[in-house]
Amino acid sequence: MSRKSKFANESLVTMTEMVLPNDTNTLNNMMGGRMMHLMDIASAISAQKHSNRIVVTASADNISFTKAISLGDVVTIESHVTRAFTSSMEVYVKVSAENIPTGEKFVSNEAFFTFVAVDQSGNPINVPECIPETEKETELFEGALRRRQLRLVLAKRLSPDDATELKSLFFGNSKTKK
Amino acid sequence: MSRKSKFANESLVTMTEMVLPNDTNTLNNMMGGRMMHLMDIASAISAQKHSNRIVVTASADNISFTKAISLGDVVTIESHVTRAFTSSMEVYVKVSAENIPTGEKFVSNEAFFTFVAVDQSGNPINVPECIPETEKETELFEGALRRRQLRLVLAKRLSPDDATELKSLFFGNSKTKK
Amino acid sequence: MSRKSKFANESLVTMTEMVLPNDTNTLNNMMGGRMMHLMDIASAISAQKHSNRIVVTASADNISFTKAISLGDVVTIESHVTRAFTSSMEVYVKVSAENIPTGEKFVSNEAFFTFVAVDQSGNPINVPECIPETEKETELFEGALRRRQLRLVLAKRLSPDDATELKSLFFGNSKTKK
Amino acid sequence: MSRKSKFANESLVTMTEMVLPNDTNTLNNMMGGRMMHLMDIASAISAQKHSNRIVVTASADNISFTKAISLGDVVTIESHVTRAFTSSMEVYVKVSAENIPTGEKFVSNEAFFTFVAVDQSGNPINVPECIPETEKETELFEGALRRRQLRLVLAKRLSPDDATELKSLFFGNSKTKK
Amino acid sequence: MSRKSKFANESLVTMTEMVLPNDTNTLNNMMGGRMMHLMDIASAISAQKHSNRIVVTASADNISFTKAISLGDVVTIESHVTRAFTSSMEVYVKVSAENIPTGEKFVSNEAFFTFVAVDQSGNPINVPECIPETEKETELFEGALRRRQLRLVLAKRLSPDDATELKSLFFGNSKTKK
Amino acid sequence: MSRKSKFANESLVTMTEMVLPNDTNTLNNMMGGRMMHLMDIASAISAQKHSNRIVVTASADNISFTKAISLGDVVTIESHVTRAFTSSMEVYVKVSAENIPTGEKFVSNEAFFTFVAVDQSGNPINVPECIPETEKETELFEGALRRRQLRLVLAKRLSPDDATELKSLFFGNSKTKK
Repeated sequence: MSRKSKFANESLVTMTEMVLPNDTNTLNNMMGGRMMHLMDIASAISAQKHSNRIVVTASADNISFTKAISLGDVVTIESHVTRAFTSSMEVYVKVSAENIPTGEKFVSNEAFFTFVAVDQSGNPINVPECIPETEKETELFEGALRRRQLRLVLAKRLSPDDATELKSLFFGNSKTKK
Repeated sequence: MSRKSKFANESLVTMTEMVLPNDTNTLNNMMGGRMMHLMDIASAISAQKHSNRIVVTASADNISFTKAISLGDVVTIESHVTRAFTSSMEVYVKVSAENIPTGEKFVSNEAFFTFVAVDQSGNPINVPECIPETEKETELFEGALRRRQLRLVLAKRLSPDDATELKSLFFGNSKTKK
Repeated sequence: MSRKSKFANESLVTMTEMVLPNDTNTLNNMMGGRMMHLMDIASAISAQKHSNRIVVTASADNISFTKAISLGDVVTIESHVTRAFTSSMEVYVKVSAENIPTGEKFVSNEAFFTFVAVDQSGNPINVPECIPETEKETELFEGALRRRQLRLVLAKRLSPDDATELKSLFFGNSKTKK
Repeated sequence: MSRKSKFANESLVTMTEMVLPNDTNTLNNMMGGRMMHLMDIASAISAQKHSNRIVVTASADNISFTKAISLGDVVTIESHVTRAFTSSMEVYVKVSAENIPTGEKFVSNEAFFTFVAVDQSGNPINVPECIPETEKETELFEGALRRRQLRLVLAKRLSPDDATELKSLFFGNSKTKK
Repeated sequence: MSRKSKFANESLVTMTEMVLPNDTNTLNNMMGGRMMHLMDIASAISAQKHSNRIVVTASADNISFTKAISLGDVVTIESHVTRAFTSSMEVYVKVSAENIPTGEKFVSNEAFFTFVAVDQSGNPINVPECIPETEKETELFEGALRRRQLRLVLAKRLSPDDATELKSLFFGNSKTKK
Repeated sequence: MSRKSKFANESLVTMTEMVLPNDTNTLNNMMGGRMMHLMDIASAISAQKHSNRIVVTASADNISFTKAISLGDVVTIESHVTRAFTSSMEVYVKVSAENIPTGEKFVSNEAFFTFVAVDQSGNPINVPECIPETEKETELFEGALRRRQLRLVLAKRLSPDDATELKSLFFGNSKTKK
C-alpha cells in the first residue's frame, strides 16, 4: 500500500449528477456554490485515490462560471491529480453539462484544487509522486509549479520577486482569447 | 426600487451555522466544498440585497483553507458588496469559526466572489453603484479593480501587458508574510 | 472559560438563509416546520455562546405564522439569551423576511426557546448569569419569569394559584392589539 | 369531494422515522428543531386529509422536550385534526420514541398545531366540520376552544377578560403533576 | 428482551411522507429511487422492531412502478415482517399514494425486502420466529419460502432443480392478470 | 436529435460518491436504500442519454447486498442501456466500492432497472434501438428478453407457460455458484 509513485490517471474520478430542484435558484439554474461543493468532493476523491489517505482541502483556485446549467441537466465532473508536492496534491477538475432534450453538451468550467493528505491525528503525511503520461497530463504537471507560486503570492506567503515560474505567466508567451 | 447607488454596508449579510455530521469527513472536520457552498449563498444574498435582483455566480477567487473546523463548531460568514461594475458586483466574504467548549474563535478564510444581476429572462441588467464609507470598505473598493484584472488575465480574456492595475500587486509594495 | 456572568448581547446570533425549493409547499411558500427548524438552530447557537456548553432544547413557546414567505426570499433570524436560570437559558428569536425584487422587509414572527446546558454525559450543568443592558434586553429579562411560569402551568408542573408572576399577564396591564 | 363534515380519525396520520446522523447534536441526541420539523409535516398532512386542500401552518403551541432521543432510535408521530373553525383546523400531535436494542418505548411529547386551508391563490377557504367519536377525541375537541383563546391572548388579539373558556384552565379543576 | 417468537403485526410500521420538490423529476413526479429509499427505511424499521437489533439490507425483490406520484402527494408506506429465517427476515412493503385536492388514493406498489440482524460487530445473530395471525399474514408467511428460493436461484446460489417450492410459482396455479 | 439507433456505450454513466454520515446506520455502514437511490439516478441518466427524453422508473429487478460498505468509502456506479423495447429501456448497473486506506476494491452489486421515455405530458414515446458492440454488451442484450419475461411473470402480466425465453433460465444451462 505504500507505493513510491503513481500515474496521473490512477486517480481519475468521474462523477455524474442530475441537477435537482434544491440545487437551483428561482430561475431554475444551478447555483455556483452547489457546483463548487461537487467539484470539491470529486477532486477530494482523486486525491484520496492517489494517496490512500484522508485528505483535507487546502485551496481552490479561481473558478469562473460562464454558462447557465439548468434544472434537469446532467453534470459530469472529471478530476485527477496533476502533481504531488511532499504531502500536498494539485487536482485538475473539469465540469461539463448536457441538456438531455437537445443533446447539447458543453464544458462549463475547469479549476484546480489542492489537498493535503493527513494521518488519523490530522497531521500531514507524505504522498506518492504523480507521474504524467499523456501530453495533456504533462502540460498540467508542468504548469503546477507556476500555479503553486501564484497561490503563494496571493496568500502573501511568497514575494513576487521570488516567483520565478510565475513570471512566464505574465511576461512569457501568454495568449489572449477573444 | 431603482436607486442609483447604495452604501457597501447595506448589503451586509451575516450567516451563522452549526457544523453538522453530513458537513464533515471521517476526521470530523468540515469539508471545504461545504464551506464554499455556504460562502456562495451568503455572498449571493449580499449581491441580491445590493441589486434587488436575482444574481448568478460569475466567479470565485482563490480560496485557502488553513485551519480545520470541527463537528459542532459554530461558523459565521460575513459578506458585503465591495464594488459594482455595470451589471456585476464583487463581494467580500469572511469566514470565522468558534469552538464552543473552549470559546476559541479564529478567522478561517477570506475570499471574493463576483455575481451578475439578471432579469427574469436571465439577461444581465445594470446595478446601483456601491459607495464605500469606512476605511476597510474603501480599501476593498480600491483593490477591486486590481482583482478584476487578475480574474481577466487568469481567464485569458486580458493580456498581462494591459493589466496596469495588476502590476502593483506583483511589483508594487507587496509584503510577504512568514 | 468559567465566567460568572455574561451580557445578553454576547450571545447575539444572526442567521441569514435563502428559501430553497425543498423548504416550500406546492404554493411555493416556506413551510412552518422548516422555519421552526432554523429558529431552533439559531437559538441553540445563542445558548451555546452564552454557556460554552452543548445545549439541548427544553421547550419552544407558542409560535404564530402570520404572513407567507416565498421561494427565493431572504430570511434573517436574530436571537440572544434573555435570562439564565441555574442550568437553563431562555432565548428570544426574531425572524424577518425580505423579498428581493420589491425590497419589502417584514417581521415574520417572534418566539422564545429554552435550552438546558449539559456536560459530556448529558447531565445539566450551571450556566453564567445573563445581564441585560439595553431597555429592550431589560424588558425581555423581566418578562422571562412570567413566561417561565406559563410554561410550568401549561406543563402542569405548577399550580396556577402559585403562578404569581403570570397573573400580571392575564389580569394586569395587558393590552389588546386589533 | 365537498363533504360538510368528517370524523376526527379520517385525518389520522402515522409517520415513523429513524434518527439519522444529521438529525443529531454532538452528544448523538436528536435536535429539537428537527423534531418540530417532522411534527409540522405530520400535522400538515392531517390537516390536508381533513380539508383536501393545501394548508399553511398558522401556529404551533408550546412544545416541551423532556427526554433525549438518540441516534438510531425510531420516532413515531401520530396526528389528527381535533376541531375545525371556519377555515382553520387544530391538530393534535403525539410523538413517541423507541430504543431498538432495549425495546424501551416512551411518549416524548405532545403538541397542538393549527393550520389554515387555502385555495390556489393562497386565500383562506372553508373546511368541513370535525366530528369526534371516541372519549379522547371528544376531550380534545372540547379543549380546542380553550387553547384557541390562549393563543389569541398570547398573540394579544384577545383581552384576557373576554377569554371566558381560558379561565377554567387557570381557575378551574387544574391538577399539578409532580 | 429475548423472546422466542413475535407476531407479524408487532413489527407493523406506517410511514407517511409528503412528496417534496427534491424528490421529483422535471415533470414534478416522484423519482423511483427516492421511493426505494423510503421503502428500505420503513422495512428496516419493521425488521428492527421484530429483532430488537441493528439490521442490514440483504436484498430487495423486483419492484414495479405503475402510476406516477406527483409533487405534493401524500405517500403512505406500510410494512411488517412476514417470516424469519435464523438471522434473516423477509419484510412485506406496500406503498399507497393520495392526491390531496381530489382525494384519490391508490396502491402504488408492493415489494419484499430481506434484512439480516447483526450484533455490534456486524455479525449475524438469531432472531425470533415470526408468527402470522390473519389470513393475509398467513398467505405472506407461506409464500416467503418460494420467494426465498427465487432469490437464491437469481443469485445463482441454488440450482433451479432444487427449487421445489419455486416450481409452484411457474407451474402451479399461477393466474395471469390482464 | 432523432437517431434511429445508438450504441450501448453512448449511454455509459459513471457516478462516484463518498459515503457520508447521513448515508449510514449506527454501525457506520451504508444503508441499502441510499444505494438504491444512487443506482436509480445513475441508470436514469443512462436512459436519458440514450433517449434524449425525460424517463420514469418502470421497475428495479432483484438487488442483493452482500458486503458492507463503510463511512468514508468511495462508491462507483457504472450503468448503460442494454436493450430498448419500443418506449422502454433496460439499464445494467454495477456498483463497486473502494476503501481508501487499504485500497481494497470490490464489486458490491449488479442490477437491472427499466425506464420508460415520456414526452412533456408524461406519455410514453419511442426510443432509438440499442446496438451492443462488445461481447459483454451482447450477452446483456441477449439476456434482456429473458429478464423481461421474468418481470412480466412476477407482475402476473404473463403466464409462465408463455415465458419461453425464461425457461432457459431455470431449465437451461444454469450454473450454481458455491
